[in-house]
Amino acid sequence: MLKALFIDLSGVLYIGKQVIPGAVSAIAKAREKQLQLRFVTNTSRKTRAQILADLQTLGFSLSEQELFTAPVAAHAWLKEKKLRPYCLIHQNIKSEFSDLPQNDPNAVIIGDAEQDFCYEKLNRAFQLCQQGAPLLGIGYNRFFKLDDQLLLDAGPFIKAIEFAASTQAVILGKPSRDFFLQVLASTNLQAEQVLMIGDDIYGDIEGAINAGLRGCLVRTGKYQSADENKIKQSHLTADSIVEAVDYALSKNQNRSA
Amino acid sequence: MLKALFIDLSGVLYIGKQVIPGAVSAIAKAREKQLQLRFVTNTSRKTRAQILADLQTLGFSLSEQELFTAPVAAHAWLKEKKLRPYCLIHQNIKSEFSDLPQNDPNAVIIGDAEQDFCYEKLNRAFQLCQQGAPLLGIGYNRFFKLDDQLLLDAGPFIKAIEFAASTQAVILGKPSRDFFLQVLASTNLQAEQVLMIGDDIYGDIEGAINAGLRGCLVRTGKYQSADENKIKQSHLTADSIVEAVDYALSKNQNRSA
Repeated sequence: MLKALFIDLSGVLYIGKQVIPGAVSAIAKAREKQLQLRFVTNTSRKTRAQILADLQTLGFSLSEQELFTAPVAAHAWLKEKKLRPYCLIHQNIKSEFSDLPQNDPNAVIIGDAEQDFCYEKLNRAFQLCQQGAPLLGIGYNRFFKLDDQLLLDAGPFIKAIEFAASTQAVILGKPSRDFFLQVLASTNLQAEQVLMIGDDIYGDIEGAINAGLRGCLVRTGKYQSADENKIKQSHLTADSIVEAVDYALSKNQNRSA
Repeated sequence: MLKALFIDLSGVLYIGKQVIPGAVSAIAKAREKQLQLRFVTNTSRKTRAQILADLQTLGFSLSEQELFTAPVAAHAWLKEKKLRPYCLIHQNIKSEFSDLPQNDPNAVIIGDAEQDFCYEKLNRAFQLCQQGAPLLGIGYNRFFKLDDQLLLDAGPFIKAIEFAASTQAVILGKPSRDFFLQVLASTNLQAEQVLMIGDDIYGDIEGAINAGLRGCLVRTGKYQSADENKIKQSHLTADSIVEAVDYALSKNQNRSA
């Protein structure tokens, strides 16, 4: 029986500034039927506060405690380990890391840095990792959709530095098992009672299943034809969040009856 | 018995504008003792003509026919297949590709593009590959040494696009087996009669051994402590090109005696 939904944001609830048709009422219906909701995103172009405000502007109702972001998880990891990060991250979220010492860096963190992905800064990240600094990735997503374009996400750049420095990144955010389990812990449910809904076959679906959750790929956002065949693990597919929520509610009948 | 040397350039014969001590006379000695010589490089910041001129300025004597470069191999591959490449390559070698049609590209080629490795151009490369354009790599080197700095080479960027677009690049130049065999074909020798001398444990040594050649890693250039342990295949190591040539000549005594 499904008792909670973990929901990816971009491509599932909206694309750019356009809400996916029916998404607002689907979320409202799920909440009405007492499914627990968590919103889980690797987005690293906005602060958590901005994400929350934007969702509310689009008409979604959610509380701060329901929103889990990869940058916040990465910040906590760096702080706990008392590291001084070299931040290859987006201008918009630099403020979220400004409390950490960043002079004489001994760690590297890579998010979706957009224009900051340039030869000079990637070299700096590589040189630090080559000297032994741990590499931290905000998610491992390959690409995302903005307006009608597919754009490179942080994953390929993390991969590049891993390869150059013969190292392996610690991934905070999806598809990290630890990240899914951290969100799960906030629900007091068992993993198999949770359905992750996302448009990224690797980051959302494969990651969730590897953490013991169930997964539902939606055919919106960055979904590309035949994506569902790219992983071996059994999962659901749905035309959109609307169908995914309907499915979850049909598996929750016993409880709401 | 060794009858030919394949010699990497940067890091083996020189670093930046500094000749490795003893390198000029080592090459002269090898030639005097009638070892065949081939100079094989993935360098994609200079045209073949520039590389040749620079080597001669540094005091090395070699003919054009002895010099094999990855950009030339890549150009030949594109031309044979009649492809229109999107060229993410260094400004300095764009002239070598200017005879190929590049409007409405249906292939992507990535070399060491230096400052051209920016978010916008990497996105363009990714989008083309995502739509099915073949990806071509000029070498697959992870990094190189310039002055006292290690800098990212083409390999990590090729890796990034491979990952983003779920594709696999065709590599022209080292460590491609086809490239080593093409150079070998110019010698009329058997693979095991050739020693590849290089400072890149993967691109030079592992690649050569996979093509059936023998390999000797030199501890100059970008060599890093313990690099020799990074591959499983048996190979030689030498302090520099000087010791490597002496070794080759000692294995060639029967012939020159």
